[in-house]
Amino acid sequence: MRRKIRMGMVGGGRGAFIGGVHRMAAALDGHIDLVCGAFSSDSEKSRLSGQDLYLPEDRVYDSYSQMILTEKELPVGVRMDFVSIVTPNHMHFGPAKMALENGFHVVCDKPLCLTKKEAEELVDLVNKSGLIFALTHNYTGYPMVKQAKAMIRNGALGHIRKVVVEYPQGWLSTLLEADANAKQAIWRTDPNQSGAAGSMGDIGTHAENLAEYITGLKISEMCADLSIFVPGRKLDDDGNVLLRFENGAKGVLHASQICNGEENNLNIRVYGEKGGIAWRQMEPNTLTVIYQDKPSTIYRTGWAGLEREAIAHTRIPAGHPEGYLEAFANIYRNFAFCIQARLSGEEVDPLYTDFPSIEDGLRGMNFVEKVVASKGEWIKM
Amino acid sequence: MRRKIRMGMVGGGRGAFIGGVHRMAAALDGHIDLVCGAFSSDSEKSRLSGQDLYLPEDRVYDSYSQMILTEKELPVGVRMDFVSIVTPNHMHFGPAKMALENGFHVVCDKPLCLTKKEAEELVDLVNKSGLIFALTHNYTGYPMVKQAKAMIRNGALGHIRKVVVEYPQGWLSTLLEADANAKQAIWRTDPNQSGAAGSMGDIGTHAENLAEYITGLKISEMCADLSIFVPGRKLDDDGNVLLRFENGAKGVLHASQICNGEENNLNIRVYGEKGGIAWRQMEPNTLTVIYQDKPSTIYRTGWAGLEREAIAHTRIPAGHPEGYLEAFANIYRNFAFCIQARLSGEEVDPLYTDFPSIEDGLRGMNFVEKVVASKGEWIKM
Amino acid sequence: MRRKIRMGMVGGGRGAFIGGVHRMAAALDGHIDLVCGAFSSDSEKSRLSGQDLYLPEDRVYDSYSQMILTEKELPVGVRMDFVSIVTPNHMHFGPAKMALENGFHVVCDKPLCLTKKEAEELVDLVNKSGLIFALTHNYTGYPMVKQAKAMIRNGALGHIRKVVVEYPQGWLSTLLEADANAKQAIWRTDPNQSGAAGSMGDIGTHAENLAEYITGLKISEMCADLSIFVPGRKLDDDGNVLLRFENGAKGVLHASQICNGEENNLNIRVYGEKGGIAWRQMEPNTLTVIYQDKPSTIYRTGWAGLEREAIAHTRIPAGHPEGYLEAFANIYRNFAFCIQARLSGEEVDPLYTDFPSIEDGLRGMNFVEKVVASKGEWIKM
Amino acid sequence: MRRKIRMGMVGGGRGAFIGGVHRMAAALDGHIDLVCGAFSSDSEKSRLSGQDLYLPEDRVYDSYSQMILTEKELPVGVRMDFVSIVTPNHMHFGPAKMALENGFHVVCDKPLCLTKKEAEELVDLVNKSGLIFALTHNYTGYPMVKQAKAMIRNGALGHIRKVVVEYPQGWLSTLLEADANAKQAIWRTDPNQSGAAGSMGDIGTHAENLAEYITGLKISEMCADLSIFVPGRKLDDDGNVLLRFENGAKGVLHASQICNGEENNLNIRVYGEKGGIAWRQMEPNTLTVIYQDKPSTIYRTGWAGLEREAIAHTRIPAGHPEGYLEAFANIYRNFAFCIQARLSGEEVDPLYTDFPSIEDGLRGMNFVEKVVASKGEWIKM
Repeated sequence: MRRKIRMGMVGGGRGAFIGGVHRMAAALDGHIDLVCGAFSSDSEKSRLSGQDLYLPEDRVYDSYSQMILTEKELPVGVRMDFVSIVTPNHMHFGPAKMALENGFHVVCDKPLCLTKKEAEELVDLVNKSGLIFALTHNYTGYPMVKQAKAMIRNGALGHIRKVVVEYPQGWLSTLLEADANAKQAIWRTDPNQSGAAGSMGDIGTHAENLAEYITGLKISEMCADLSIFVPGRKLDDDGNVLLRFENGAKGVLHASQICNGEENNLNIRVYGEKGGIAWRQMEPNTLTVIYQDKPSTIYRTGWAGLEREAIAHTRIPAGHPEGYLEAFANIYRNFAFCIQARLSGEEVDPLYTDFPSIEDGLRGMNFVEKVVASKGEWIKM
Repeated sequence: MRRKIRMGMVGGGRGAFIGGVHRMAAALDGHIDLVCGAFSSDSEKSRLSGQDLYLPEDRVYDSYSQMILTEKELPVGVRMDFVSIVTPNHMHFGPAKMALENGFHVVCDKPLCLTKKEAEELVDLVNKSGLIFALTHNYTGYPMVKQAKAMIRNGALGHIRKVVVEYPQGWLSTLLEADANAKQAIWRTDPNQSGAAGSMGDIGTHAENLAEYITGLKISEMCADLSIFVPGRKLDDDGNVLLRFENGAKGVLHASQICNGEENNLNIRVYGEKGGIAWRQMEPNTLTVIYQDKPSTIYRTGWAGLEREAIAHTRIPAGHPEGYLEAFANIYRNFAFCIQARLSGEEVDPLYTDFPSIEDGLRGMNFVEKVVASKGEWIKM
Repeated sequence: MRRKIRMGMVGGGRGAFIGGVHRMAAALDGHIDLVCGAFSSDSEKSRLSGQDLYLPEDRVYDSYSQMILTEKELPVGVRMDFVSIVTPNHMHFGPAKMALENGFHVVCDKPLCLTKKEAEELVDLVNKSGLIFALTHNYTGYPMVKQAKAMIRNGALGHIRKVVVEYPQGWLSTLLEADANAKQAIWRTDPNQSGAAGSMGDIGTHAENLAEYITGLKISEMCADLSIFVPGRKLDDDGNVLLRFENGAKGVLHASQICNGEENNLNIRVYGEKGGIAWRQMEPNTLTVIYQDKPSTIYRTGWAGLEREAIAHTRIPAGHPEGYLEAFANIYRNFAFCIQARLSGEEVDPLYTDFPSIEDGLRGMNFVEKVVASKGEWIKM
Repeated sequence: MRRKIRMGMVGGGRGAFIGGVHRMAAALDGHIDLVCGAFSSDSEKSRLSGQDLYLPEDRVYDSYSQMILTEKELPVGVRMDFVSIVTPNHMHFGPAKMALENGFHVVCDKPLCLTKKEAEELVDLVNKSGLIFALTHNYTGYPMVKQAKAMIRNGALGHIRKVVVEYPQGWLSTLLEADANAKQAIWRTDPNQSGAAGSMGDIGTHAENLAEYITGLKISEMCADLSIFVPGRKLDDDGNVLLRFENGAKGVLHASQICNGEENNLNIRVYGEKGGIAWRQMEPNTLTVIYQDKPSTIYRTGWAGLEREAIAHTRIPAGHPEGYLEAFANIYRNFAFCIQARLSGEEVDPLYTDFPSIEDGLRGMNFVEKVVASKGEWIKM
């Protein structure tokens, strides 16, 4: 019989942003319990965070290694089933590696780690261990992204010719990281914590992942022009990239954290021989499909005629907007279903195995490396 | 020390719609555990539903009375703290009354019950018992609805003159209730289960509640023209209502379930001496504020400059859309905070006491009674 | 052989608003020349206005009667072919009557005149004279309004059940008419110049006309609640109206000039058994058609697959927005084609006979009379 | 005293598209009369076109040279004042040169001509002759484009950092030019008639012109990836371009005629240190201005608080949409005012001297040359 899946969390203590998102996403559908955590490298802060989350004291740890090693000794069904890693980028590799080495499945925030080399090591570990690994490129969890992918795969647009993917934000329009309280800004703009890229690692990877996910195509070549616009900043805060895809399609990817006034305006347009699609994260329940010879059509989350991939990732009928957390929760829900199936020896419907994988993580690290190396020249992916 | 609040559910078994919504809303923020339920009057179905929800067998009951009486005997901290009632309308009164009589707080789906008389009895019980009661007029849980209410209360629009509130749906454009599998349609169009009104009870009450909530005004008089458009239907599936408010404002309310093609298009516009606002449930993260002498401004969920009422009901920064479940969860979160405060003897920040009350329920039943009685003539509320 | 049609104008001198609109609309397509005018009752102002418009001095008149009587004596092909009346409402009847009595075709701004009695007299004159009369309910000139009408007539929505038509403006949110320079406000709020209704005559008639035009249905009964919100104002500045149509459809019409912040937000939604449509004047090139069982479709001005009624009233391919003046010009273009046909004895394609007629004008005056008389009770149209 | 300005047209006979646009644009405001034309190289077609336009036979010519030489001999005030050139690209240079050499002002459709060399010759001629020359980069005629330019010039966005300009169309998604009736497609895809670039010349130049106009910045460097997606086509039908501006701003320009389903979706976003703006041609009356620390504001054509540059190019109050023809007409209106001033020896308000010039034409030809030469490498403008 199925049981709830137990989650231990690394990071996400008081004051963090993405940790709370992961916890809400994990909780939403009722298949996952948070049972333990190492919420901060500051043990007092970890303890207080555990209290906030109603955890018993003995399941709140001072460090991820303590958590992994202690939980490992608890009986199955009590101990955590998987680790959720929600720390800054430079702190992904360590806990991911250790969790995998000790038999725990892993959910990891993106980008996967700091370097392609680290990524390759994790890929090896996942492959060897057979453990389940999910990377939270959460935007692919939106029902209308699933719909777009399914329609393109089914040929609704014909051969794909052009892709435009954008991720403009504006929150780093000033040197926010100079403010000691601006934790989100500080680590994201610090090469030691964020990696070789700034905006390109933080959100450019989302754009890359979304484009490849929806089209089912791989980027084969890029020409990137990265900039640092805010004086004093150490990593790119803006980048414009020409894309070429393996099938001959061309495209543009641009991501920025200095597009003053933009919130989180990830969006994509894909054009093929027969038609085009447009999707925008900030109004995610609408997918526009356009044709030269037919009126535009608007597909909406929850409509009964959607592709089954979309329906399987929707909770409520059309007109009740589902948002960012619901899309994020789709990753956790599917991940939980896969663990439940592993536990029970059953097959999972392939619909529910659809979440970003360790390979997506490796691909993202490759993107980061190449987009930084391009310096305005064409570079192969 | 705070602890998680324990929920028992009445209704919401397999095949139900709103039960799942309540469970996700209760789960999202991690303050509430589902601990027991009487999910169906069919005990086998209740048992299977309990299994789906990972409940132990002994906490899944055959009836709400069994649940209330059994749980009452369990120790505090084990037994449920409150009952969530998610049955069709005609099954609200019984469990609500019994829960209140036995010391349990209550969350109840809307409309409150079948008649104004029942509603008055529940008001009495809540007042006498001092228990906490929340009615899930969930749309008031949206951050931008809170923003609108706060701005109007603070005088941003000046004296209010006109209110237009609409709730068009299209799903009952045909005699869907003739299909034996269409459970949602069947009970909503059956006077015995739904009450004196069809569309006006189901969604007209949401429109009435939203208009009064945002403006802070009471409707004083109405002139309603209800219709049954689908032959064979027993209750109104459409209604147009002229409104007069106690402060002299005028308005229009129309709700319909035969507006073919409409999803769940609840929306409101309020105009005052100084400006106007517009909000639409299907894109709920945007509040448009318009002025005659200034450019329109767009307020967005998550912006740091919003009113504190809006900020207190938002989880993530601007640009990450929050949807229907998040708004619904705001009711449960606040409700849980109120119970926690009751348990610990602390005060709750008034921000968190803002959820629809038993009085809103009574007012809704009054609306239903009057809108049906109007028959095209003016009637006092 | 066809020749350009000659226009004489009554009203529209310096400082007027709608006169310039009529002139641009008449000029756009190159079928009409302005040849003379009595632009103001102030003869110096008339003279200067004529200069602005490059007219020879001897074709600028001191009064409409002087113009009509003088032009009548000029040879055909020199004298004006028709009179365009762009004065305030109370000055429509006189020049219209005299023009018709002297053999001139007429374009007249809406509403037709001050009273139903005047309207009936004009109807008689048009019928007796056989002259061509166009009333500038200009919104019916939009291509997507033509598209909506054609689709409904062709059964795309099935039997019509519900109509919602709105015309909110905000420009009279204050007592603008107290400013001696606010000419547009002054005459529109003065019963002697505007007639029995304020907002209902000025824009309510547009809403009524649009609803009946698009649906092809007649309003049979109304219940209207008119208000004066701005202290000191003499005519209604807001009105909410319940509608019943001859086919059993129900509806709501509301128009207002105190909806603070609204520009010119005329819009309509029509719902039938099979689907619904939505159109909004401020983005007039889009017609949304929605269905319960299909994705929404967006029809756009200029698309080659539109109904021929829409195509015949479009000038440029899709994506080049056509606006208010183009819609207005469609009335003038069709009117000119009808006069040309009359001159040459040819038949006009019925596509081009589609412009608001004297009967629409009479119907509008009837609407004004009844909407004022209703006072919250049901009244037959 | 001012008089109407007289226009002679080259091209724009029956079956042409842009000729009609120019005529409507010239006619709209009543300052220009079409007095003659050489509408086609086919003299019968020219004659019939002249008839359609109500021209006397003796003012309809067989060729532009005949027109220029004959009109030159007519008395001032009878002869045309300027030539409007609306032929395919390869037929711009000849008539423009001859008109300038014979003392006629010129309006010319874009792009200016076929090569940079031709462009330079025309620049010389304009400079030497002192004649007035307007190039119809019509999109800069929109009021909200004027508003954007004025706001940026006044520092509303601070130092500009990023520009994204797009011009996707879909109408050449198939080999439309293989159809002998598809005149618009045939000449635009023929190197002999269109020049070195296809989509980049036809619409890429509009994007380039718009970006430079609004920002007041010059593109200093580009890296362009042009494609031919439709087999059999001879010129680019798609192009993606990285931009660098002289002030250090970066950007992306992409234009395409194979973005299947797109109509005419020219749009631009500009981000600076203080805020950003967004404008989209298909809904041209809205300018969105966004800030990190304030709610977004929506500026609308016709609002009384706009910059005077916007107001001077608007005809009617807010809420009455102005479209493509009105924007186009702004170029003709300003051009006419400049000729009138030249005739009368008066000064023109600089507001009305704002229309695209021969220098914009040269710049466009430079853009075409460089964007084709880039071949994926950086190239200086």
